[in-house]
Amino acid sequence: MVVVFTGGTGGTKLVQGLQQVVAPEELTVIVNTGDDIEWWGLFVSPDIDSVLYGMAGLLSTERGWGVEGDSFRCLERMKRLGQAPWFSLGDLDLATHLTRTAMLRAGKPLGEATAELAAKMGIRARVLPMSDDRVSTMLDTAKDTLTFQEYFVRERHQVKVHTVRFEGAERARPAPGVLESVAAADAIVLAPSNPVTSIGPMLAVPGILDALRTAKASIAAVSPIVGGAAVSGPAGELMKMMGWPSTIAGVARAYEDFLDVLIADRADEVEASHLNSKTLRVVCTSTIMKSMDDKRALARFALDACATPQITGFAGD
Amino acid sequence: MVVVFTGGTGGTKLVQGLQQVVAPEELTVIVNTGDDIEWWGLFVSPDIDSVLYGMAGLLSTERGWGVEGDSFRCLERMKRLGQAPWFSLGDLDLATHLTRTAMLRAGKPLGEATAELAAKMGIRARVLPMSDDRVSTMLDTAKDTLTFQEYFVRERHQVKVHTVRFEGAERARPAPGVLESVAAADAIVLAPSNPVTSIGPMLAVPGILDALRTAKASIAAVSPIVGGAAVSGPAGELMKMMGWPSTIAGVARAYEDFLDVLIADRADEVEASHLNSKTLRVVCTSTIMKSMDDKRALARFALDACATPQITGFAGD
Repeated sequence: MVVVFTGGTGGTKLVQGLQQVVAPEELTVIVNTGDDIEWWGLFVSPDIDSVLYGMAGLLSTERGWGVEGDSFRCLERMKRLGQAPWFSLGDLDLATHLTRTAMLRAGKPLGEATAELAAKMGIRARVLPMSDDRVSTMLDTAKDTLTFQEYFVRERHQVKVHTVRFEGAERARPAPGVLESVAAADAIVLAPSNPVTSIGPMLAVPGILDALRTAKASIAAVSPIVGGAAVSGPAGELMKMMGWPSTIAGVARAYEDFLDVLIADRADEVEASHLNSKTLRVVCTSTIMKSMDDKRALARFALDACATPQITGFAGD
Repeated sequence: MVVVFTGGTGGTKLVQGLQQVVAPEELTVIVNTGDDIEWWGLFVSPDIDSVLYGMAGLLSTERGWGVEGDSFRCLERMKRLGQAPWFSLGDLDLATHLTRTAMLRAGKPLGEATAELAAKMGIRARVLPMSDDRVSTMLDTAKDTLTFQEYFVRERHQVKVHTVRFEGAERARPAPGVLESVAAADAIVLAPSNPVTSIGPMLAVPGILDALRTAKASIAAVSPIVGGAAVSGPAGELMKMMGWPSTIAGVARAYEDFLDVLIADRADEVEASHLNSKTLRVVCTSTIMKSMDDKRALARFALDACATPQITGFAGD
C-alpha cells in the first residue's frame, strides 16, 4: 500500500508517475483542500481537480491546471455579467464543479463526492481529500488577509506574507480513510508540493501529523526546492516567512517530525551530503519531471527510497 | 405605460416588437416562472431567460431558446459525469444561471436578480417575474406527475395530461411591481403564449387575476392558436384538457374574466366574426412573427387595439 500526500500542479506529476508504477488498488492519494474556493457559487477544489484531471489524463499540460483543450466561453460571459475576472473556470472544467457542488449541497461529504467524480473519470486509485470539513488557508499579508487563491492567483504571490493560518483546521477531522491508509501504508511519499500551503494544511488537521509520526512505513518527501529555489510558485518565500531556509534543509525542517528520507535534486548534492544524518537519509536524483518517463522514474525512486532500510551515509541513486 | 404578460418563445417575439415601439421606461414585461427548474444545482428560469435574451438581442433565432452561437461543451462533459442529458444548458447560457443562482443563494429575491441581469444585458425596460416565490407547474399525466420541463422537454409533450396544477401558487405573492404596473397601465397585452401553462400560472398567483379584472387599461390578448391549432407547443392539447376548444374561442374562454380585445390571425377571420360580441372585441391581423417588421407591426396593432374604444362590430385592421 502506497500513500502520497499532494497539493496541486507539481505534486500531480509525481502522482501520475506513481499511478504508472503502483497498482490502482494499492495507491491512495491524499489531497490538500486548504486552497478550496467558492467561486460563481460553486465549490472548487483546485488541488483535487488537478489530481483527478492528472490521473484521468485530462489535465492541461500547457496550463498545468484545468482540462486540456478547454474553452472559456462561460467565463467571458461571466465577465460581461460583472463577475470578478481573476479566477478562471473552463467550460469543461465547470462540469466538475457543478457536479461536486450539487453533491455537496445534497449533503454528500467531500470525500464521497471526490470518490464519485474519480470513478466517473475512470480513476481506480483512491483519491481522498485531507478532510470533509472546510479548512481555509488564510494569509495575512502586507495588503490584507487573503485566501490562498486571492494570494496565489489574484495577487500572483507578489505580496509579502506575515503569517499563514489554516482556518477551521482545529475543528476539522481527517476524511474517512486518511488515518487508516497512513497506518496501513508500506510507503508514504510527500509529493514535491509547497510545504507551507500544500502540505501544511494537511499536517494542521488534527490526527494527520500523529499518524505520520507513528506510521510503520518509511516516509519520503520529494523536495519542491531545487538549487535553493522553488521549482514553481512561492514555496521559497513562504518557507522563509516560516523561519526556515528556502533550501532542502528547510524542507527537512518542515517535515522533521516524521521524515525518514528526503529526495533532493542532483543540483543539491553538496547540501544533501551535509544534511544526510543518522535520523534523516538524503538521497539525490533528477526531480524535474518533464516527461512521463521522468515521472515514472521519480515515482520508482521514491518507492525504492521508502523500501531501503535506514542506512547511514550518502545513498545517491 | 404598457404591460405585457408573457411566457417563453412565442411571447418573446411580441415582447421584442413592443421593445421597438414603446419607450423602455414605459414598458413592463411580466414573465411566467412556473417553468423554472433546478438543474445541475442551478436555478434556471427558462421564460425569463428567453425574454432577457430576446430583449438583449442574444436569443438564438434558430433554437428559439438560449444564446445565439452558444456551445454545449459543459453539457457534453456533464453527460460524461453521469448527469441526465435531456435538458440543455449552453456554455454562454450557463453564465446567466450561475449569476442568478449566486444572487438567489445570497438571499436576493428573484425580481431583484432579474433586474440586475437585465441591467447587465443592457435592457432598460422593466422585466418582472410573476412572483419572487416558487411556483411549480405540475402536470399529472398518464405516465407520472411531471414538472413542466419534464413534460415539455423530456417527454416532448407526447404524454396525455389529466390535470395541471400550480404548486405553491396559493401561497405566492406577486413580485414587487406586478400589481402596481397593472394598475398604472394604459395598455395591457397578453402575448401569444400558452394560456394554460404560460399565462395560467400567472393568473394563479393570488392578486394578479383581480388586478386584471379591475385594471383601468384595456386588455388585449394575442391568440397563440391560429387556424384551430397552436402555432407551436402543446397549447391546443392542454386547452382541450381544460375543457376549452382549441380555437380562438378557447383563448377567449381562458381569459373571459378580464379580456377586452382578442387579436386573432386572419386565418381565423370567420370564427372571429362569430366570436365578436358586445363584451369582447375580436380583431384580426397577421400574427405569425417571422421578421422584426412582423413583430413590430403586431406590437403596434396590439397597442392600437388597446387604445381603440370598445366598439361593437368587427374591427379587423
